[in-house]
Amino acid sequence: MSAALVEVTRGLAVESRHHGSVAVCDADGALVFNVGDVERAVFPRSGVKALQALPLIESGAADRYGLTDSEIALACASHAGEPEHIATAAGVLARAGLDAHALECGAHWPLSEASARALAASGAGPTALHNNCSGKHAGFLCLACAIDVDPIGYVAEDHPVQRAVSAAIEETTGTRLSEAASGVDGCGIPAFAIPLKNLAIAFARLGTGAGFAPERAAAAKRLREAVWSAPFQVAGSGRFDTEAMQLAPRRVFTKMGAEGVHLAALPELGLGVALKIDDGAGRAAETAMAAVIRRLLAVEGDFAAWLDARTYRRLHNWSGVEVGAIRAGEALSS
Amino acid sequence: MSAALVEVTRGLAVESRHHGSVAVCDADGALVFNVGDVERAVFPRSGVKALQALPLIESGAADRYGLTDSEIALACASHAGEPEHIATAAGVLARAGLDAHALECGAHWPLSEASARALAASGAGPTALHNNCSGKHAGFLCLACAIDVDPIGYVAEDHPVQRAVSAAIEETTGTRLSEAASGVDGCGIPAFAIPLKNLAIAFARLGTGAGFAPERAAAAKRLREAVWSAPFQVAGSGRFDTEAMQLAPRRVFTKMGAEGVHLAALPELGLGVALKIDDGAGRAAETAMAAVIRRLLAVEGDFAAWLDARTYRRLHNWSGVEVGAIRAGEALSS
Repeated sequence: MSAALVEVTRGLAVESRHHGSVAVCDADGALVFNVGDVERAVFPRSGVKALQALPLIESGAADRYGLTDSEIALACASHAGEPEHIATAAGVLARAGLDAHALECGAHWPLSEASARALAASGAGPTALHNNCSGKHAGFLCLACAIDVDPIGYVAEDHPVQRAVSAAIEETTGTRLSEAASGVDGCGIPAFAIPLKNLAIAFARLGTGAGFAPERAAAAKRLREAVWSAPFQVAGSGRFDTEAMQLAPRRVFTKMGAEGVHLAALPELGLGVALKIDDGAGRAAETAMAAVIRRLLAVEGDFAAWLDARTYRRLHNWSGVEVGAIRAGEALSS
Repeated sequence: MSAALVEVTRGLAVESRHHGSVAVCDADGALVFNVGDVERAVFPRSGVKALQALPLIESGAADRYGLTDSEIALACASHAGEPEHIATAAGVLARAGLDAHALECGAHWPLSEASARALAASGAGPTALHNNCSGKHAGFLCLACAIDVDPIGYVAEDHPVQRAVSAAIEETTGTRLSEAASGVDGCGIPAFAIPLKNLAIAFARLGTGAGFAPERAAAAKRLREAVWSAPFQVAGSGRFDTEAMQLAPRRVFTKMGAEGVHLAALPELGLGVALKIDDGAGRAAETAMAAVIRRLLAVEGDFAAWLDARTYRRLHNWSGVEVGAIRAGEALSS
């Protein structure tokens, strides 16, 4: 059974309520904090982009094409489609001699409303570069080119790129994807349901390298350092993951996924966090993640204030009047 | 306890799940169908705009200013900010000798993404006319002018406009708002929490006039007929309430509210429907409402097909691949 994690208030009343589950584990699999059902398999969606980027590093593709920290960070991103994200994605493709036509993720308007409006004002429309997954897909294409396979169809489950990506997820989470519930992700690649506890273990390992062979530990370190040096690439202006890692690089590595998933590594504690909001609401996943980090990590100053503001987020109406809040429930805040 | 009402699937697995409650009542208060907790007080938000528009008719304001069906429909609307909505709202204000500066609802970008992009492309930004509540507020201003009170501050709880609006809600729902949990709505007016069952009763009455004094029954009829003759005004292109009433005017009167509320009248059955999704998700409220209407009403042809497509809504990713569905759960579909 999942638990009440987040409440949305209006005046003094609770208007809406979000249930979900949270698992916090170390790299050996010990469960150190849990709420709800941590054995439940969930689709991690974009939460595992950093795991999906391991083959890009381990194959030597990132070195072969001389990818920068910003470019590697974008491979781990659900970016907002701001101009810097688009330029970075196009740059990664150019390094492999490709352009946006090679992307198989589909096009959507930038997640950033300001960027979507600016794009519309320019008279243009979105391309696959604006897809929030374009950096991950550009990384997949680099991988395909580096291992010398035809990149066309790189999103298919039996393509060497996806076989490498699935193997990285299987190994880091300690699960068998052939036995998992599966589907197609928003960007066209295979999606597999993985128990929340295993996702937390994988992130504990990703955060320190503990439990990984030396080559994988080095790849994880390179991904972490890239994201911490360029956190803007991983999400965008005003977004949770970007702000968290701008304020506390090396202390937290966080990544949201669609449908209410949020994953994090807390390297100094050797812990990984995985949470899923049952109803898929991103607003609740962010609030819950802020509360879990606040609870586990000793913080102060700007990062503490930021976590507090995200754990109890004041809501204002269109006239600027404070009307309520999105706040962590007792299960997380006590 | 609320119940599982709607599931979101990916592949063959359930990825997310929405809980909530549904009340279906007749005008006398008999409960004819229920799921979950129908005594629970919920903020109906924009679901009750038609009840809030009763004083506009009953005061004679709509007649005094010669409001058309489209203009009256817009007073009951959460519109998408499409050009026709903006023109209609401006027209209502002009009838009372006012303009957009009199609106106290605040400004936001049009809910219609296409209209928001077109507005951005024109180099302009949103005004209070683009607020989805501008038609309701234009109606409030007509009411203030018609009863000869200063319109400034018409959103305040103790202003004669809001006193009339609150009285209409109290009388139609059979509740005492002085004892209700309260807050401020997104558009600045008072919001009161009302038991789901009472909202269903009010909509049963709104749909037929049963249980109302003759003047109120006539006002309810005028509101219904206005909305049915101009359903585009009530929501907009592709939106649930507009499409439902374009396909089945006089058979259904539906209205969404923020945070997962959906209300409906089914006049031929003498019933009202009120539902709330616990987590506030509009996608689930629409799916649940489609399922409830499908269950209660004998339908065929285009309306049946539309309800079926809304009860089991196929989801496609950015490449057009079908990845899952939003579907009514057993509690509603069986």
